[in-house]
Amino acid sequence: MRVSNILTFLTSFALVANADRLVRFISTDNREYYGDAILPRNSTDSAHSTHANVIRGDILGDYTVTSQIKEIKTLLAPLPAERVRAVRCVGLNYVAHINETNQTIPSFPILFYKPITALNTPFDPIPVSEGYQTQGDFLSKMDYETELVIVIKKKAFNITDEEAFDHILGYTVGHDVSHRGWQIDRGGLPQPQFAMGKGADGWAPWGPAIVTKDVVPDPQALNIWTKVNGVTQQNSSTANMIFPVKHLVSFFSMGTTLLPGDVIFTGTPNGVNLGKADPDWLVEGDVVEVGLENVGTCTNEIKYV
Amino acid sequence: MRVSNILTFLTSFALVANADRLVRFISTDNREYYGDAILPRNSTDSAHSTHANVIRGDILGDYTVTSQIKEIKTLLAPLPAERVRAVRCVGLNYVAHINETNQTIPSFPILFYKPITALNTPFDPIPVSEGYQTQGDFLSKMDYETELVIVIKKKAFNITDEEAFDHILGYTVGHDVSHRGWQIDRGGLPQPQFAMGKGADGWAPWGPAIVTKDVVPDPQALNIWTKVNGVTQQNSSTANMIFPVKHLVSFFSMGTTLLPGDVIFTGTPNGVNLGKADPDWLVEGDVVEVGLENVGTCTNEIKYV
Repeated sequence: MRVSNILTFLTSFALVANADRLVRFISTDNREYYGDAILPRNSTDSAHSTHANVIRGDILGDYTVTSQIKEIKTLLAPLPAERVRAVRCVGLNYVAHINETNQTIPSFPILFYKPITALNTPFDPIPVSEGYQTQGDFLSKMDYETELVIVIKKKAFNITDEEAFDHILGYTVGHDVSHRGWQIDRGGLPQPQFAMGKGADGWAPWGPAIVTKDVVPDPQALNIWTKVNGVTQQNSSTANMIFPVKHLVSFFSMGTTLLPGDVIFTGTPNGVNLGKADPDWLVEGDVVEVGLENVGTCTNEIKYV
Repeated sequence: MRVSNILTFLTSFALVANADRLVRFISTDNREYYGDAILPRNSTDSAHSTHANVIRGDILGDYTVTSQIKEIKTLLAPLPAERVRAVRCVGLNYVAHINETNQTIPSFPILFYKPITALNTPFDPIPVSEGYQTQGDFLSKMDYETELVIVIKKKAFNITDEEAFDHILGYTVGHDVSHRGWQIDRGGLPQPQFAMGKGADGWAPWGPAIVTKDVVPDPQALNIWTKVNGVTQQNSSTANMIFPVKHLVSFFSMGTTLLPGDVIFTGTPNGVNLGKADPDWLVEGDVVEVGLENVGTCTNEIKYV
């Protein structure tokens, strides 16, 4: 075998060791694949990849990006829900959002959890059950929150800020769907009901790609935005986080094991309905796009079920 | 084959369809089994079974209690953590506990989550990492909370109170280990940090047996208690719950799928350190027994790690 043939043979199943944009998708053969998404030409953050190099192995462990290219029919969430053992979310992490909602800057990150049943794909509807719809005086105060999402690759326990990046696989964008009626009006004050106001099925769209650390070396320098029915409602930068990515990972690892596949929603900037004098709560048919620079967008429609 | 022989043959692998007390244990052959625990003679709630009938199949699906009896060397948690997809906990569910902590009776159940890494066995130590130990002015306010725990058997989504029992496998006792320093003093008020104050590894001992609905037809009539180093600190009845078991299951299923294996810690009665003028916070070496009538006890020692 000549050297060029050997190279051709080798590259036919192993192009590179690390992916840039990890996706999970259904291809035109109706089979599910993990892949390294190929960016479209003249790519914008809202343009989605149509093709990906197929990945063999486990994206949370050892994997290989192959030269086999598949067409993407449907982009799924980057991991199936059962591979995510904990969905951590940060309560108040941008000063302008704290100000718009008349709250106090916390001394420590505020943590709450969503159940894994809240995880949704990047493009499926956000279901709103009867209990979350307007009933008499109780208003369906549905709100959007766009967030940078950290994906954990390696177990973390009592780690330092400096060690945090060794435990991160990459970043994606997520939507912390929020119902201010159940979170606050019926929240059992002084406690807000993070869990009841944010934990329903499908209330955490995320994806479509986990963009690896090599592509996003600095997660604190990304534009982050929300569009509702095409109109921009949130527009900020992850530079405005109070507690940066590395500190959230180390802080949450205090006495607590973060597992591979765990995700951390890192809080939302200003511009949410809750902060507005004249809020325009989301209703059936509204389409919300959440976006993060160089990472991507999720676009989901509110659907009463 | 004569009828009596056929019966002997049949009963040799299938005694009854439903277990009374589902346990998971290591036997003297060092293998892991699911079993139906055999109550000791002159049983008390603190006495643990030494033998169990081996169960074949899936205790969350179809299973058979066999006539094979194995000795119990070590009782484990009733399910491994990976079979539990969500650990739901109720914030304030007993009036006397709300009064002792100067809080208000909530109009709706207050829900928070622990990660599955918090689940612990009934008898292993409760680890307390450096970040939760006393450091200067920051006190390690470690507290106990004994709770009835519901185990879900069948998926539940938007169900009614009346349907709730169809979705319950049974009940066990659990310990909602709580750190008032991280929950309140560093809680980012007005929010208490349920997650940071209660979510560390091993801070949810539970078990040892899931006692099925047949054995406990009324979960609202059970004595519930805590002993610290042998001295009773909590002593109440599940009759005092504000929101009963059936309502918690239906309420939490609002727009949210409860999955088989999910557990719900249903809140603690009065008698916790937080409610005392002169609290005696748990420190290394303290041994906490949490108990529930006809169900059992967990006994765990506080251990600094």
